Formats: sequence, structure tokens, C-alpha cells
Amino acid sequence: MSLQQPYDPDNIFARIIRGELPCAKVYEDDATLAFMDAFPQAKGHTLVIAKDTEATNLLNMPAERLGPLMADTQKVAKAVVAALKPDGFRIMQFNGTQAGQTVFHLHFHIVPFYEGSAMEVHGKGQAEFSELEALAEKIRAEL
Amino acid sequence: MSLQQPYDPDNIFARIIRGELPCAKVYEDDATLAFMDAFPQAKGHTLVIAKDTEATNLLNMPAERLGPLMADTQKVAKAVVAALKPDGFRIMQFNGTQAGQTVFHLHFHIVPFYEGSAMEVHGKGQAEFSELEALAEKIRAEL
Repeated sequence: MSLQQPYDPDNIFARIIRGELPCAKVYEDDATLAFMDAFPQAKGHTLVIAKDTEATNLLNMPAERLGPLMADTQKVAKAVVAALKPDGFRIMQFNGTQAGQTVFHLHFHIVPFYEGSAMEVHGKGQAEFSELEALAEKIRAEL
Repeated sequence: MSLQQPYDPDNIFARIIRGELPCAKVYEDDATLAFMDAFPQAKGHTLVIAKDTEATNLLNMPAERLGPLMADTQKVAKAVVAALKPDGFRIMQFNGTQAGQTVFHLHFHIVPFYEGSAMEVHGKGQAEFSELEALAEKIRAEL
């Protein structure tokens, strides 16, 4: 899809926010939800999203909401690092199908990198929910 | 390098901020500098950095400074999109050598994606300064 498509209120993240679909939750406050990516590129791959928004991507997100969302992304990234001790991590945010975006609700990826491990291709396979929940529990313990 | 190394005041971005090294500048204000990546992964690959900081990565950046930096990243990304009309773009921020970080001053990448073009491997080759300056001029015109 292009960078200008309308917001679909039934996209998978909107349904997760409304509690219609499960997620392995890492963090939640009034504005932000963080949960394990169901198709992880690496152990501990976590997503951070704004809750009350219809921003499909970075272009249509109100600028004043980026600060709180990024501060929460930092907070969750610190917990991922404390819990899983990766050697590095990436923050990634995709805009448009051409750039790899698959869910059209603005989201930040936190992808840990471990020495000796290559990053998985996103969407290679769906993780077991129980494995994701175990990782989420470790990360929550650091928050 | 690890996620915990000390800040090197002579890193290449610190030297660009001090004007000791040239850059193809896209945007500058009191807090932020944006310029073309000299080793672009795609046409219009732009970097956004905070000026007065010793943050090597996301872990040691003061949370309250993330909002302004991200708002400026959004502003520059909008100008990149307006100027170069990519089909998509990624925001990427690398932490630690293992995750691909090569300059240890916190920075956000804006990487445009174009239909039919694959992303170049970062560091494949240095771009001609004149080409970068021509792209920077196009982007500046949208700011």
C-alpha cells in the first residue's frame, strides 16, 4: 500500500488494542502498548505502538505524540536489553509496503542482535505464544 | 563496540557538528542537524542527529530530548518524501556494532525505498559529495 492509504480500524494492531486479539504484552499505559512481535526476527523482537491514534505511518502522526511514544520505546528497549542481554539492537519503523510495512498502524520495532546470530527474515514463521509470553514476562520484570 | 562504551568527542558526527568535516546539510536548528549519509543505502538516505549530546546510542539519551529529535526526524522525512517521491521509507536507529552501528553518536537513518530498487548494503561505497549536495538541495527546498 502507498504512504497515503486511509486508516483501517480493523487492522490487527487496532484489534489487539481493543482486546479482540491476544498479544504477549510487555508494557501498557494510557497512551502506549508494547508486545512481542508474533513473527519475530530475533529473540525478544518487541513492537511499540500508540493506542489512541489513526496514524498509519510516521507521515500522519501528530508530532507532539512522537515524544511520549519514543520515550516509551526507549523504556521498553532498556528492559529488553536488561532482560535478554543482546549485544546490540535496532529500532526500526517502516512506512509503506515497499519499505516492508505489513500492518498500517504506526509501530516501532525493537530488534535485539546477538553475537553469532543472523537476523531472521521477518514473517519467516509465527512463534509459539507460550514462548512469546515467557519472553514478555522476563522483559516485564525489568520495567 | 558494546552498548556501554564512553562517548568519543572526536567521532565523525561530533566533528561534523563542530564544522571540522563537511556534510551535505539538509536541516539545522539549535538542537538538531540533518545531512546526507555519505555511504547511502538508497537515493536520499539522510541522517538526523542531536547536536549538544554525548549519547552514543538510545540507552544513554535523555528521554526528554527524544521528542524534539523525533519531531525533527519526522519533519525531514516529510521533506525527503516530498522531494524524492519514494514509494516508502524506513526510520532506523542502530545500537552497538552487532546491530550495524558504525558511528557512536546516536543517529536516526531515513532510508527511502523505491519500487524496483533493492537497498544497497551500507558502506558499499562513498557517494560523490556533489551528488549528495544536489539531493540535499532538493530536500531543503521542501522544508
